[in-house]
Amino acid sequence: MKRYENQQWKESMRITLDFNNMMADMLGEDQGISKESIASLDEQLKTAAQAMKTKREEGKMDWRDLPWNQNEIVEDILNTASKIKQKFDAFVVLGIGGSALGPIAVQQALNHMHYNELSKAQRGGCPRFYVADNVDPERMKALFEIIDVEKTMFNVVTKSGSTSETMSQLMIIWDMLKDKLGEGYRDHIIATTDRENGNLIKIAKEHNLKTFYIPRGVGGRFSELTPVGLLPASVCGIDIEEMLAGAAYMDELCSTQDVHKNPAYMAATLQFLAMKSGKNISVMMPYADSLKYMADWYAQLWAESLGKRYNLKGEEVFAGQTPVKALGVTDQHSQVQLYTEGPFDKVITFLGVGKYRTTMEIPRGFEGIPAVSFLGGHTLNELIHAEQAATEYALLKAKRLNRTLTLPEVNAFTVGQLLYFMEVETAFAGELLEINTFDQPGVEEGKNAAYALLGRPGYEEKKAELDARPQKKEEYIL
Amino acid sequence: MKRYENQQWKESMRITLDFNNMMADMLGEDQGISKESIASLDEQLKTAAQAMKTKREEGKMDWRDLPWNQNEIVEDILNTASKIKQKFDAFVVLGIGGSALGPIAVQQALNHMHYNELSKAQRGGCPRFYVADNVDPERMKALFEIIDVEKTMFNVVTKSGSTSETMSQLMIIWDMLKDKLGEGYRDHIIATTDRENGNLIKIAKEHNLKTFYIPRGVGGRFSELTPVGLLPASVCGIDIEEMLAGAAYMDELCSTQDVHKNPAYMAATLQFLAMKSGKNISVMMPYADSLKYMADWYAQLWAESLGKRYNLKGEEVFAGQTPVKALGVTDQHSQVQLYTEGPFDKVITFLGVGKYRTTMEIPRGFEGIPAVSFLGGHTLNELIHAEQAATEYALLKAKRLNRTLTLPEVNAFTVGQLLYFMEVETAFAGELLEINTFDQPGVEEGKNAAYALLGRPGYEEKKAELDARPQKKEEYIL
Repeated sequence: MKRYENQQWKESMRITLDFNNMMADMLGEDQGISKESIASLDEQLKTAAQAMKTKREEGKMDWRDLPWNQNEIVEDILNTASKIKQKFDAFVVLGIGGSALGPIAVQQALNHMHYNELSKAQRGGCPRFYVADNVDPERMKALFEIIDVEKTMFNVVTKSGSTSETMSQLMIIWDMLKDKLGEGYRDHIIATTDRENGNLIKIAKEHNLKTFYIPRGVGGRFSELTPVGLLPASVCGIDIEEMLAGAAYMDELCSTQDVHKNPAYMAATLQFLAMKSGKNISVMMPYADSLKYMADWYAQLWAESLGKRYNLKGEEVFAGQTPVKALGVTDQHSQVQLYTEGPFDKVITFLGVGKYRTTMEIPRGFEGIPAVSFLGGHTLNELIHAEQAATEYALLKAKRLNRTLTLPEVNAFTVGQLLYFMEVETAFAGELLEINTFDQPGVEEGKNAAYALLGRPGYEEKKAELDARPQKKEEYIL
Repeated sequence: MKRYENQQWKESMRITLDFNNMMADMLGEDQGISKESIASLDEQLKTAAQAMKTKREEGKMDWRDLPWNQNEIVEDILNTASKIKQKFDAFVVLGIGGSALGPIAVQQALNHMHYNELSKAQRGGCPRFYVADNVDPERMKALFEIIDVEKTMFNVVTKSGSTSETMSQLMIIWDMLKDKLGEGYRDHIIATTDRENGNLIKIAKEHNLKTFYIPRGVGGRFSELTPVGLLPASVCGIDIEEMLAGAAYMDELCSTQDVHKNPAYMAATLQFLAMKSGKNISVMMPYADSLKYMADWYAQLWAESLGKRYNLKGEEVFAGQTPVKALGVTDQHSQVQLYTEGPFDKVITFLGVGKYRTTMEIPRGFEGIPAVSFLGGHTLNELIHAEQAATEYALLKAKRLNRTLTLPEVNAFTVGQLLYFMEVETAFAGELLEINTFDQPGVEEGKNAAYALLGRPGYEEKKAELDARPQKKEEYIL
């Protein structure tokens, strides 16, 4: 029996949300959120909860079913991953945004923090892992200097196949592989894309590439629990079934319509109220290096989902809250000065860890210097926990909104929970803001302008528009 | 002759600030900054410029002289670095905040992007490089699994020697080294600290450690151009003399009192006006992976320097602007939706690169798919430049304040310029805000609370205060 089939173990691994320090009881009336203000939203909360339910039932939130409906896909992934491990020294994701942030976050959370510097044996036979999520030529060159493309599997990930960055990278490795391997190139490329539409599926079919699919109704930033995230994780030895079980468990925890019992709905409600009172910044501050890139993944989810000019009625609202990534304790020495003394403009979300996966003792020493020697006999575990508690206390004293999500331990089950929690929180916040959580119209302008600048056919008008943009003034350049 | 002794080369490497898109001429009156609003600050700008001059003359801004007064120190560093290269496989900085962010940023900017994965020969004989800037036990354990402490030099960096995180780490490696090397331990530790005061200098003297000094008047976040940053950089093969020459050049460019001709003063002035009109967020978005961690370094500098509860008159002002780190083009697929459609609450600073240090061609291919094949024949360099220009254009159309700092190339000279530019900008912004730019009173509360929780002698009262903090309510935990 897998441990995640044991109800008791699952409950012991349940993520908790502590929002005491969001509330007026703790923070005071001027900054804290009162019970009354939550109560006054009652109708809106019920409507939003109903909308979440209805949309799911109507198949408009396909990402919600991912923890439950992927048995066959998982089997295919496990088989593929096992073959990749045997043959390849490196696994490179070619993808950007939603195709990259999830795989990076999960790898950092669940594998060795210097994974690529270990020997293959130390990695359990898994290949080194890279995500090429930029088109900086210096970075691409650096990557090719440390991998042998003949021993590398490339996983090209784009739903539409029209992502310039990813398709450019594909063209580069395509040429390299053909040059070195002739017809063998196709054994070094796996496509993860839409099942029917777009350029990549066309290419994959024509060249008979191994392919995984991103379900039609699942957008990029909600795709970590599809093959986008599951394949890279599995290739690197992560238990993806446990990850999905964690997501399924969180789905159960978030299944109630009662906001007061639903952790993700409550989290979203408090953020919504905070936004309404002018908190336009949302800081995520994990107290664990393993969770560092969860803040990056969340930053896309929260920014792209909620940052919207129009609401569903078509009114201009310029909604959104800017996500900020921080890291405890590191950023206590960088950002906490601002968080405690600067403007009252943010909500800080701590990600805490109940039990770290190792213990490190601080030996006794420097007995002649009490300001140092008091540390001896403690553990780093105690130190990081004390610092987290101390920072929380300092924020409380300074009346700064903060909340804590605690993972009893960082493992595939809790990471699955965390991902799913944040997705549900985001979707519910979108309902409360009455916006379209799942589109991203604001990236079109830049995308089209880039196409125009590169001379893509059909973008001649946009090119003319760009050519006619106001000339820069020399006096404004120093 | 070194290239940075050639005036023509220096001018060709001059960083430029383009603030067209901050101005009402380009952005429109409702969001842009008008010439009149700058003119109306005239008196304040003159006072601030005078204060910068006077403080420097009075020795109250020692960091301003670092590009000029370190010949002997540089010689010592070069000698030390050369010895370290001969003997050690790894160089580990034990430091946090200002002791860590600069070394990380400079390493990323000027060395191979997979430096630690290269062979020692490929690294030019330099050791692998790590910065242990957190006390997460999982991360410390991971570090010890990939280094051999007997072949590692540890550079412990803390001015006061009272930084719990760094001193804990020192105690751990001290014990390990003594255990393995007996009296040889002292050849594996270099202390960078205050010349006279604090716990670390006491320990260094008692144990006869090699020591470098952080000048008394230079605070942590302004210390990158002291041995804090120069030693690690030099050990990793970076030309620190060129870096200092770059800083010296920027000092010259910023020496005029006339704000309209002084790039750092003008930059600060525009940020000050933006803050006054409610832009409480400052995004730094380099279009180069090499400059990615410059945004982290800047985040500390800007947040800790300007995030202040009181002004110099003792009035409550809750000043500050929250720095956000982004990366182009990567975060176009994560943050730009919010930047173009969300609240009008931010200033975006692009860091651009004139000429990348390599060129990567996109081969022709997929001729049957015009939506892909148009990319062929271009270079990644053209692509990333086009995307930067396109994003700038999209922000302009959406009337979002943005500005661009362009490095003609990323090298030690331009990185030195950039660091110094941001320091002067920050200091001038502090003058305009009439706050103390150089202290950080807001971190004391958390630091003391952590001491109390760990039982440091003398913190019994704080412990009692913590014990008496309001009990958390179960109803606020889900």
